[in-house]
Amino acid sequence: MSSAERIIMGVDPGTNVMGYGILRVEGRRVEMVALGVIDLRKYGDHYLKLGHIFERITGIIDAYHPDEMAIEAPFFGKNVQSMLKLGRAQGVAMAAAIERQVPITEYAPMKIKMAITGIGTASKEQVADMLRRMLRLDREEMGRFLDSTDALAAAFCHYLQMSRPVQEKGFTSWKDFAKKKNLI
Amino acid sequence: MSSAERIIMGVDPGTNVMGYGILRVEGRRVEMVALGVIDLRKYGDHYLKLGHIFERITGIIDAYHPDEMAIEAPFFGKNVQSMLKLGRAQGVAMAAAIERQVPITEYAPMKIKMAITGIGTASKEQVADMLRRMLRLDREEMGRFLDSTDALAAAFCHYLQMSRPVQEKGFTSWKDFAKKKNLI
Repeated sequence: MSSAERIIMGVDPGTNVMGYGILRVEGRRVEMVALGVIDLRKYGDHYLKLGHIFERITGIIDAYHPDEMAIEAPFFGKNVQSMLKLGRAQGVAMAAAIERQVPITEYAPMKIKMAITGIGTASKEQVADMLRRMLRLDREEMGRFLDSTDALAAAFCHYLQMSRPVQEKGFTSWKDFAKKKNLI
Repeated sequence: MSSAERIIMGVDPGTNVMGYGILRVEGRRVEMVALGVIDLRKYGDHYLKLGHIFERITGIIDAYHPDEMAIEAPFFGKNVQSMLKLGRAQGVAMAAAIERQVPITEYAPMKIKMAITGIGTASKEQVADMLRRMLRLDREEMGRFLDSTDALAAAFCHYLQMSRPVQEKGFTSWKDFAKKKNLI
């Protein structure tokens, strides 16, 4: 892990609400810089929705200059129709990153949960709680943005994957790592 | 139908080959300006593929300045995995159009076939043949770009939808229209 500052943008691309979270990593320090949602429910028109995703994601990239983007990407869903819609929303968000030359890494939801809590089937609340402890956020701060938890989790998962302190430092698990770092 | 020139860009977004076709409409004249494919098979990496789609579609828009984009968009497919991939490819192509403020219209494959040949279940060859006659292309010209037939068909379908000569002129069908216009 380099000591240079690195900004990670996490995105949870949904077709109704798109969450995002920004992490700043500097040496061993990691902190949350921003957390928010792009509400797409008010846009009835499909292309207005896609256009809004493109504009907002581009705007967030231009505001925080992320070095990398981590996306939560489920690879299967209920039906083909909803997967096509989700694919489009993902594609537009990815196009915004590609256009700004931000490399993308995808993580399956189970992989993210596993990386953060050590449990692949952890609940949203368990993930949020672990993130809150690891990033030293207060409950209120976290509670206001429950829709963007998955985005922040994707960014944090990417941070963990890139830095891999468990393997480097000989911790037995993330829980062990978090405990020894006095995070939980 | 206005007599001002209008450029229609047709796109057939696939995950391996993406076809495109450009039509120029001026008054009652419609002619093919360009026809081609974006070959994505050489890109192993998924994001390189999406990035290439974005760059090429943007480049084609900048070269021909289309007033509108018509996309062939199937709404269901074999499995959720392939639909997610297709959705992403479509989303990236749409993002390029949205970014350049080109309005998008989607047409289902059956609708395109119906508009051009009068038969919703027409074969690719039947569609290509009708397009060749209507646009007065030679067989060789058309044959070289079979992968972009669907894209050109989408653009032509959009032209027909926008100009609606059948209703205006009292033709009984597209076949009737084509016949009376000495196109077939």
